[in-house]
Amino acid sequence: MSVTAPQGFRAAGVVAGLKSSGARDVALVVNDGPLDAAAAVFTSNRAKANPILWSEQAIADGRARAVALNSGGANCFTGSFGFQTTHQTAERVAELVGVDAQDVVVCSTGLIGVGDETFRAGVLQGMTDAAAALSTEGGDDAAHAIMTTDSVAKQVHVERDGWSVGGMAKGAGMLAPGLATMLVVLTTDAVADAATLDAALRAATRVTFDRLDSDGCMSTNDTVVLLASGASGVAPTADELAAAVTAASDDLAARLQGDAEGASHDIAIEIVGAASEDDAVVVGRSIARNNLFKAAIFGNDPNWGRVLAAIGTTDAAFDPYDVDVSFNGVRVCHAGGPDRPREEVDLTPRATRILVDLRVGDAAATIRTNDLTHDYVHENSAYAS
Amino acid sequence: MSVTAPQGFRAAGVVAGLKSSGARDVALVVNDGPLDAAAAVFTSNRAKANPILWSEQAIADGRARAVALNSGGANCFTGSFGFQTTHQTAERVAELVGVDAQDVVVCSTGLIGVGDETFRAGVLQGMTDAAAALSTEGGDDAAHAIMTTDSVAKQVHVERDGWSVGGMAKGAGMLAPGLATMLVVLTTDAVADAATLDAALRAATRVTFDRLDSDGCMSTNDTVVLLASGASGVAPTADELAAAVTAASDDLAARLQGDAEGASHDIAIEIVGAASEDDAVVVGRSIARNNLFKAAIFGNDPNWGRVLAAIGTTDAAFDPYDVDVSFNGVRVCHAGGPDRPREEVDLTPRATRILVDLRVGDAAATIRTNDLTHDYVHENSAYAS
Repeated sequence: MSVTAPQGFRAAGVVAGLKSSGARDVALVVNDGPLDAAAAVFTSNRAKANPILWSEQAIADGRARAVALNSGGANCFTGSFGFQTTHQTAERVAELVGVDAQDVVVCSTGLIGVGDETFRAGVLQGMTDAAAALSTEGGDDAAHAIMTTDSVAKQVHVERDGWSVGGMAKGAGMLAPGLATMLVVLTTDAVADAATLDAALRAATRVTFDRLDSDGCMSTNDTVVLLASGASGVAPTADELAAAVTAASDDLAARLQGDAEGASHDIAIEIVGAASEDDAVVVGRSIARNNLFKAAIFGNDPNWGRVLAAIGTTDAAFDPYDVDVSFNGVRVCHAGGPDRPREEVDLTPRATRILVDLRVGDAAATIRTNDLTHDYVHENSAYAS
Repeated sequence: MSVTAPQGFRAAGVVAGLKSSGARDVALVVNDGPLDAAAAVFTSNRAKANPILWSEQAIADGRARAVALNSGGANCFTGSFGFQTTHQTAERVAELVGVDAQDVVVCSTGLIGVGDETFRAGVLQGMTDAAAALSTEGGDDAAHAIMTTDSVAKQVHVERDGWSVGGMAKGAGMLAPGLATMLVVLTTDAVADAATLDAALRAATRVTFDRLDSDGCMSTNDTVVLLASGASGVAPTADELAAAVTAASDDLAARLQGDAEGASHDIAIEIVGAASEDDAVVVGRSIARNNLFKAAIFGNDPNWGRVLAAIGTTDAAFDPYDVDVSFNGVRVCHAGGPDRPREEVDLTPRATRILVDLRVGDAAATIRTNDLTHDYVHENSAYAS
């Protein structure tokens, strides 16, 4: 039930003093092989943190032996000093673990613009301590060490016949003050090459993490990395591997959504009848990013007018007067007009399902989001950050 | 100081029972000429309310004699019955005022999906009462009759040498529950033809209403209409007219922003050093729509990291590591790194100025927005709508 569940991995999570709370804040995941194949996807934000700039290069050859992670500081917009901190982190881990620095992926999360000498010293000492604590039972500690305002550690283990995929994630759908990062480490003991891993990871993230859009705010540090040890000796097909990685990613995405800060509803916006999958995603995302819709859900109000107004801003193929909208199974809008009475809709459960039928094609997609609540505003305004 | 300030216009605002509060809810503005030139811009939302569908056709010939407005119901997604209501409204006004129905622009604001027999009867009776109350002093009543959750009536009068532009607006930057509409009526006694009016109105809205983006939520009913009576006998140049219409629009846009529901800050996001004006608008809008940034301003937090993360999502020309950001005159970010201490920034005043220098060109634009507050969430979630 963690990154150390598959064979061939050790991990650790330690206290390095980066978090004022005194909780674990430095994590290390090491792939003991025999393989060192790896793949990763990073934020598409052009404002990239130093660890992203480093890790994009480190992963470029499809190989990685370790992932070094810290909470308590994003090391973003910290200039060349910050980049050197990332570089030194990789060098330190390489020396401790006995690998090449170019095979160390680095991930950071915390406040943008912070990354001074004290931060650097804490990270480096943390890596030393983490390396000493590495264990095949260390996945749980590592998962706790990457938490920021997460209320629970998020881990997954997808078991297949003789091999498996493990994983951990941090981040809240509704992003915390300055801690706007989703970090995910996936491990597998399957035998696979880098190209197969890359294809599996991209297929998985496309329909899971990429469709989690809690507040439309894209982080500077988002990273999802997948490591393969090959220690099981089993070589699944590319499709089998992609399916398992997708299952693990979907589980973690649901956990991220479920722990979204300040949220009172986990909303699945299912778009069907679209002309293309792209159209379905565009329409779903437009609804997911509409503050009026999100506030209405917080108020348990099945406000289909706000749904139609949101999709009307897109250029997807549909006729605004031929769209159906259901809230939790009750079709309140048919053909762009009122249908069942809104009083029939029960929006009190946390799990909320919006179904939009565009009635022009056969494509579909589901976007996950959360509602806009008082607590979201509070958590993103009341703290100095 | 209203739509009846220029010569040649009468207006009225009456109680028709559409609002449960018993306040004025039907307004009528009539152009007594001698000219009947007019221009209008409408929401770009593809989900258009019935009054929009009607008015786009009515204004197509560049002529209008009257604008009939109601609050208490948006008449949007109310099907053919709703379109007939709009049509009957225009017919009723045409008969009462002695003009052609095709010269009556209709505007509605209120909840989407509501527009039954009772609503229709109320609107029609309201128009009858409003026609009987028309007066050259009626502008203030009309401005009150189009209010929804606005806390103040919004009016303007821009005086020039022998002619002027008057106007009224309704809407809150932060949109009200289901009442997601901005309606603006501008009047002038200048002598101008429809093409000149249209050019002046588009030039004005492009840099005023189009750059007011309080919560990224686009209405189904937005309308800005400009009527010219020619009663002054003065024919300004096209540039003079455009400047006066822009001044009036800018004043009303500022009033809309200042009355934004739930807002505690009026934020001007000024982008300079952009490669093009389009780039400046894209960057400014990206910041204006970032909930984390908006919540930070509510918390009086000069969080420049959220500004950089927001602009990093655009494809505008800039180097993330060569951008300056100032909050209320204090440059807290220089060349993509920390500059002055954030403690030097005072964000307690309601008027807030964000200056972003992209340092790649000479183009600039300013986007107006508001902060994301507890009251915004409350007002858009707590009411049944």
